[in-house]
Amino acid sequence: MSRERLEALREELKRQGVNGFLVPRGDEYQNEYVPPSEERLAWLTGFTGSAGLAAMANDHAALFVDGRYTIQAQQEIGDQPLEQQDLNPSAIAGWLCDNLKAGDTLGFDPRLHTEPGLAPLKKRLAEREIGLQPLESNPIDAIWSDRPAPPSGHALPHPETFTGETSDAKRRRIADRLEDKRADALWLANPEVCAWLFNIRGSDIPHLPVALSCAILYRDGSATLYMAEAAASSALREHLGSGVELAHDKTGLFDAARRQHVARIWLDPLLTNCWTLQQLRAMDLELIMDRDPITGAKALKNPVELAGSRAAHERDGAALCEFLAALPDAVDNGVADSSFGELEAVALLRAKREQREGFTDDSFDSISGYGPNGAIVHYRVSPESSLPMKAEGIYLIDSGGQYPDGTTDVTRTVALGEFSEQARDHFTRVLKGHIALATLRFPTGTCGEQVDAFARKALWDAGLDYAHGTGHGVGSFLSVHEGPQRIGKVSTGVALEPGMILSNEPGFYLTGQYGIRIENLIFVKESDQYPGFLEFEELTLAPIERKLIDKLLLTPMELEWLNNYHQRVRDTLMPLVDEKTQAWLQQATEKL
Amino acid sequence: MSRERLEALREELKRQGVNGFLVPRGDEYQNEYVPPSEERLAWLTGFTGSAGLAAMANDHAALFVDGRYTIQAQQEIGDQPLEQQDLNPSAIAGWLCDNLKAGDTLGFDPRLHTEPGLAPLKKRLAEREIGLQPLESNPIDAIWSDRPAPPSGHALPHPETFTGETSDAKRRRIADRLEDKRADALWLANPEVCAWLFNIRGSDIPHLPVALSCAILYRDGSATLYMAEAAASSALREHLGSGVELAHDKTGLFDAARRQHVARIWLDPLLTNCWTLQQLRAMDLELIMDRDPITGAKALKNPVELAGSRAAHERDGAALCEFLAALPDAVDNGVADSSFGELEAVALLRAKREQREGFTDDSFDSISGYGPNGAIVHYRVSPESSLPMKAEGIYLIDSGGQYPDGTTDVTRTVALGEFSEQARDHFTRVLKGHIALATLRFPTGTCGEQVDAFARKALWDAGLDYAHGTGHGVGSFLSVHEGPQRIGKVSTGVALEPGMILSNEPGFYLTGQYGIRIENLIFVKESDQYPGFLEFEELTLAPIERKLIDKLLLTPMELEWLNNYHQRVRDTLMPLVDEKTQAWLQQATEKL
Repeated sequence: MSRERLEALREELKRQGVNGFLVPRGDEYQNEYVPPSEERLAWLTGFTGSAGLAAMANDHAALFVDGRYTIQAQQEIGDQPLEQQDLNPSAIAGWLCDNLKAGDTLGFDPRLHTEPGLAPLKKRLAEREIGLQPLESNPIDAIWSDRPAPPSGHALPHPETFTGETSDAKRRRIADRLEDKRADALWLANPEVCAWLFNIRGSDIPHLPVALSCAILYRDGSATLYMAEAAASSALREHLGSGVELAHDKTGLFDAARRQHVARIWLDPLLTNCWTLQQLRAMDLELIMDRDPITGAKALKNPVELAGSRAAHERDGAALCEFLAALPDAVDNGVADSSFGELEAVALLRAKREQREGFTDDSFDSISGYGPNGAIVHYRVSPESSLPMKAEGIYLIDSGGQYPDGTTDVTRTVALGEFSEQARDHFTRVLKGHIALATLRFPTGTCGEQVDAFARKALWDAGLDYAHGTGHGVGSFLSVHEGPQRIGKVSTGVALEPGMILSNEPGFYLTGQYGIRIENLIFVKESDQYPGFLEFEELTLAPIERKLIDKLLLTPMELEWLNNYHQRVRDTLMPLVDEKTQAWLQQATEKL
Repeated sequence: MSRERLEALREELKRQGVNGFLVPRGDEYQNEYVPPSEERLAWLTGFTGSAGLAAMANDHAALFVDGRYTIQAQQEIGDQPLEQQDLNPSAIAGWLCDNLKAGDTLGFDPRLHTEPGLAPLKKRLAEREIGLQPLESNPIDAIWSDRPAPPSGHALPHPETFTGETSDAKRRRIADRLEDKRADALWLANPEVCAWLFNIRGSDIPHLPVALSCAILYRDGSATLYMAEAAASSALREHLGSGVELAHDKTGLFDAARRQHVARIWLDPLLTNCWTLQQLRAMDLELIMDRDPITGAKALKNPVELAGSRAAHERDGAALCEFLAALPDAVDNGVADSSFGELEAVALLRAKREQREGFTDDSFDSISGYGPNGAIVHYRVSPESSLPMKAEGIYLIDSGGQYPDGTTDVTRTVALGEFSEQARDHFTRVLKGHIALATLRFPTGTCGEQVDAFARKALWDAGLDYAHGTGHGVGSFLSVHEGPQRIGKVSTGVALEPGMILSNEPGFYLTGQYGIRIENLIFVKESDQYPGFLEFEELTLAPIERKLIDKLLLTPMELEWLNNYHQRVRDTLMPLVDEKTQAWLQQATEKL
């Protein structure tokens, strides 16, 4: 199917006078998830992973994906004339240098790239005298005849009962920061920062409850907000109030900046696309390139947001328990005709979540991995890959929900029947790492990279490790992956601060056999007892598989943490679950 | 005394036509320790600390020192008209901007500064239209009438029995790296890298066994080495061989580069002073600015160097044990007339070391802190500060020796008599941190900042911490502080690699009462059992104060480590110490 699309694109590139073109996965907002109308990479290549880039260069084409997607990409691209390569800047530059020659020009859609993102490529191409040309219009859009309509635009006020702070107060608070930079205005490059600043939510993107938008905030706290006209209901206009002017096309946004006599504008080069920079430069604005101040402010949840997250986690935990309690019977009933597999498990869990108040969407595509599929770290189950489940071995389910009061993300690994002693050892080491991080006390100023190894030590002791980060930030009814905080091997330079929500998700993966991960969301709070020190508190409530724990490997302190946690899970969730689940919960949280 | 010197300098600055001047502590090689002839800061201000900067600006003068030196600096500068300020780039720039005006010019000696070091200051001054002017000659040298002669220059071959690799092999190995950078030559900016590359040592600088030198390495492995003519004995010339040409002034070095038709030269901007850059630029050379490749190579000790370090640590440990064994009597004998104090302890330890084969110098100024003086992290004992010691409380001794086969650095904290239960708790937590790092297994690629917190966790648990790094690199009969490796809170991006020697030195300091630190040198080695994993092995051999350990706070594994370590200390050192020390050693290493 896509062979013709590649051909058609090649023709269109000729028409536009370039020798190659880049097709990234992101949209103009650098979103992790994108609306169907922006799925150009999937349309062109068939590849549906959450990260990737296709490149065309004269007669050749390549698809770049990272390690977690190599198998999926092979399956999805089939026999198309697409070389598969590793997704890294140096491989991309190398391939392009090999397939373009001096004097050639590589086109790109300036809306879909940032300048720092393109910089290393630009340098390499320049050395080979290959040009890099922003195109007025995306060549794929010209040939994509059945392209879905863009999101209809649906934005709702997000009430103060969930946000804990009015948009007015937030805007004044952020506007104060502009003074330090001697900036007249701040460019809000993406829907997430707009959602937080204006207290609005939407449904334009899968899993991310935002309305497509960008905005300019002025020094007096007033703002111009771009969003589709259809999104701006009268309720929304009333919510935004007189301090926020609406623009329904991007030009309106730039016009507003002109009317407001903006001379110096602050923008985050990592979030702002090249097209926007072109426009701002054409207006002769002085650009102050620095980290966006909203990302940092958004990460620090206030007491109302934390209370909301606690409440959402109770409902979500209840749903997860009902799923886990129902799982053994569902597996048993499906064994005879292989009718219950990874895909059906996702549907069952989704059904449980949908019964819970306020559930709007999964917070990401669930990872439902049975046996060997559990060992694929970023596995996404499809009808082709879904393994039927039996009453044996190990099953990993990583999922989350979006609720107006909070976003959840939880992984549990359960034994469906027999398993090896080795699996019990691995599970217990992952648990020890999980507890080590959960119980850590650390001084103010400590960054995620400084505490990451605590979650790995029990595995390191046995010469084992996992090839992913330990924790990512999580939004409040926003992205399940948010910055700037992170717990991992890579340096962030970002201190963990009170109010930040993070995941705690060590794991272990035995290729071809099973995957283990134990993930709770936690938040950072000040230590009551020790001034200047911080601690974590658990948000996630769900039993941790007792069968997989080797009690002899746990220290008394670790055992105490587990039993206390289970006690809290039982006490909190018991009133919230159905009768069958109550019996299961009683057993699953019994003292070890 | 120095009031007149400040006046004389002010006159000289007028003569040279500048309004201010910077007096850093470092010499032209950015050494940590400098020869007496380079102690301009101490001559001008009286301040003798190892880090600091004086600045003159019109009628004002200031001395910038960091937190560890504030008290010492106050004492040393006395009533001179010198404002004391915090040693950080922003404070320095702020003070200069306050005391210079637009159109003024600040002079500096380009030999004593690097471009990256000056860059932030240059930017701030430019904003205020204040000029920054390199001076032909240092104005202090013009007025320093009784300036000591420069080091006489004494360089010796360092034999292969200690280095494990010929200079020829090293030069070829490093020269290979030049190809990657398309460089014709590499600038060796300081005596440490020269000492390693040419297998030479000297005695031009206190504590650092090098000859003042710098050099150029060419792509074919040949080199031009600058050092004082007096240093180049015929033995040395023979050792260097025909591949190494000698230059006895810097001009000779630049001339050689010209003769060798060097067009592109690689240099490390962090190590190379501004004056050298001026010269190279004047020669129209293309400068490739990148991290020096020798620093990284030097950090990876070969088996001969590691064996040497082990041997040096045995002799050094024996000397330290003799000191520790003699300490109680020395204290007792001195109590009546306060004749034995911190300073006498340093002399006693030095005397013990001097009896050991090959001892050439302390590897740094010993930190000998009794009671409250132990709580001053970078304390340096002076006749004025030296506290007389009694048979009570806690004493901290941090010291090291230079031996041709290795450099040592060790800290022990001992109880001279009664102490508080709190001190025992603090000591045990420091010990737990020490053991946690010593016993850590970690995957290849792990950086110091990722493992630092293991040394702190037992303190963090109690809401405590220490305000210094956990580990620094150590050279082979070279600097006791060497990069690039480091274990600390600050990100290095440098992975710990097999062969690196590091210190492991957690501590705790209770202001006004006592300081605790337990420091061993360790080296990184591959795990026998777990491929892809690394471990540490102890080099330092000396008992850890048993009296200060609360056994109930130790885990069985920690206790096992301690007992095994003490067993090894006893078995190794018993044959090497005098009879009195043997009895002490037996007790000090008894199973706990």
